[in-house]
Amino acid sequence: MNIFSTNPAQNPLFQTIRRRRGKVQDPHITLAHGSGGKAMRDLIDDIFVNTFDNSILSQLEDQATFNLASLIQQGDRLAFTTDSYVVDPLFFPGSNIGELAINGTVNDLAVSGAKPLYLSCSVILEEGFAIETLRRIAESMQTAAKKAAVQIVTGDTKVVHRGAADKLFINTAGIGVIPAGVTISAHNIQPGDAVIINGEVGNHGTAILIARGELALETDIESDCQPLNDLVQTILNVCPQIHAMRDATRGGLATVLNEFALSSHVGIRLHENYIPIREEVKGFCEILGLDPLYLANEGKLVVVVRPENAETVLSAMKSHPVGKHACIIGEAIPSPPGVVLLKTTFGTERILDMLVGDQLPRIC
Amino acid sequence: MNIFSTNPAQNPLFQTIRRRRGKVQDPHITLAHGSGGKAMRDLIDDIFVNTFDNSILSQLEDQATFNLASLIQQGDRLAFTTDSYVVDPLFFPGSNIGELAINGTVNDLAVSGAKPLYLSCSVILEEGFAIETLRRIAESMQTAAKKAAVQIVTGDTKVVHRGAADKLFINTAGIGVIPAGVTISAHNIQPGDAVIINGEVGNHGTAILIARGELALETDIESDCQPLNDLVQTILNVCPQIHAMRDATRGGLATVLNEFALSSHVGIRLHENYIPIREEVKGFCEILGLDPLYLANEGKLVVVVRPENAETVLSAMKSHPVGKHACIIGEAIPSPPGVVLLKTTFGTERILDMLVGDQLPRIC
Repeated sequence: MNIFSTNPAQNPLFQTIRRRRGKVQDPHITLAHGSGGKAMRDLIDDIFVNTFDNSILSQLEDQATFNLASLIQQGDRLAFTTDSYVVDPLFFPGSNIGELAINGTVNDLAVSGAKPLYLSCSVILEEGFAIETLRRIAESMQTAAKKAAVQIVTGDTKVVHRGAADKLFINTAGIGVIPAGVTISAHNIQPGDAVIINGEVGNHGTAILIARGELALETDIESDCQPLNDLVQTILNVCPQIHAMRDATRGGLATVLNEFALSSHVGIRLHENYIPIREEVKGFCEILGLDPLYLANEGKLVVVVRPENAETVLSAMKSHPVGKHACIIGEAIPSPPGVVLLKTTFGTERILDMLVGDQLPRIC
Repeated sequence: MNIFSTNPAQNPLFQTIRRRRGKVQDPHITLAHGSGGKAMRDLIDDIFVNTFDNSILSQLEDQATFNLASLIQQGDRLAFTTDSYVVDPLFFPGSNIGELAINGTVNDLAVSGAKPLYLSCSVILEEGFAIETLRRIAESMQTAAKKAAVQIVTGDTKVVHRGAADKLFINTAGIGVIPAGVTISAHNIQPGDAVIINGEVGNHGTAILIARGELALETDIESDCQPLNDLVQTILNVCPQIHAMRDATRGGLATVLNEFALSSHVGIRLHENYIPIREEVKGFCEILGLDPLYLANEGKLVVVVRPENAETVLSAMKSHPVGKHACIIGEAIPSPPGVVLLKTTFGTERILDMLVGDQLPRIC
């Protein structure tokens, strides 16, 4: 047992050095953290595996695996989605990029009626990014994942040199199971259907713009970033025959309704005075020449149901904390197909087209 | 039918303008292509939906869905993985970021024994990126997807302002099904097991470094970027009891073997003179002070099997175009656990540790 032994198997010093793993020493991300080597393994162990804490991820295989038998007990179809998150700034009133990366993908699964189950997490880090900030973001992801009852089961870490990426980008992909009998699609809408939303629009976009600090404006508006999967289950419990459902994120409420109108070849009439918008958001939009109907949200669900189901769905939504401000804001009409019309507060009617150009880059 | 009609339903001009969709007009990516609005929809239609051409993606729902019944016919477990690709340059001898983004994720599924089925594709684009380059990359992705028999079924597009990302990053996540009875894991290795590789190591890393053009060196070395799933199926057909299998990407062969040794608490002895390395790669590494065993590969499979299965697996691999240079390069040993030893060409033995630091950033 000589520490200068040339046989490494008999060298206790070597064994000690080799086993000291699992804690990141540097205060900042270096290129070595993306190398595939020891520094990367330590970063993954210390930040991600410890924080996301589940038995699938901690296997550290190149892929997560789960039994199909347990999935098929929960439904008959698999839902699969992905989103990259590039929001700027990383932290903003009411939320941050980590929570957003979980809720965004959870919500893209939930709007199909799926029960979200498993998420991946892939990060692209700029050299020099603070490890403590990364830890805070990972903790936010885990808190959000727990709240939405999903597990982060596989991941990837890449590091690019300073200036090749702006701080941190996160991609999450997600898998969920859709219960038998649920068929929600943007193509299903029929004239006469009611359009329901679960609350105020425009808060997320406004919160981000104000957080950028380029405007001398102050408000207490916070992002509405929240998981919608539990609300969706509440709705499906009272009405499994939802026609269409989507979360109004990038492009806002107006974009979702345009997508619905185009996919289902129906018109949609929206009533401006029914749409819940905070007075501060209205004021903010007026000053900047923005339209709140195009502002991004991160916790707003647009539900389209047969008129005879509207009241049942509405009252179920109102009974849920995430839907307590739910209201009917419009209806599908036979003509003009593919077009969204806005009945304004003045009683006139105008086309609410798809967003042309870009109001706010890097909103999500 | 007056084109000045204030009722949009009766305005034929409006209808004509509105229907002209699906072709990107700008030569370069603008922030509007990430807005969620019309420009983004046109980009997605024109570049991604047209190129990836499948009925699941073209639904343009927020999530792809597939029947669990059809999955369960192919195996009993689901495999799920993700990787982001940040390789620099985007095009390099033998491959490009698009092909890499498909093969990398296909291979991460394949090494579990899974049949890869469905991929997602999420791109982060820098404002100003050339649309035609994006189209070429998407076409490479589709060619690679076809070759690997997978479909790209869901995706996302984000745009960041000039300077906030270096040209283009791609994330792919993937889903596959593992046949019943196949249990491959880095934790399964037993002393005595044989370590087999399907061909030359270090080509991808060398090709990337030379493509960066910072060195006054020229070679004809090309990336080995290729899908491994068909080779894996060939191996499983003759020997379903593979102990461990992984593709040697970032961190190279040395890193994979260290991961195996740590996970299975065994030692691994590697024989330097058995490892296939091109003379040009050796020469290149000598000049630059690099070690080819740590250089990234994108089509190299490391397979660990019981000694009595080694010859069967080896000859099956040699019969496959992707495995024709396969050879046995080492064996698992009881001690020192967690350590990889390299028996050098000079007959001495040294520790082949995990990569410390970073040889080559943005290699994949």
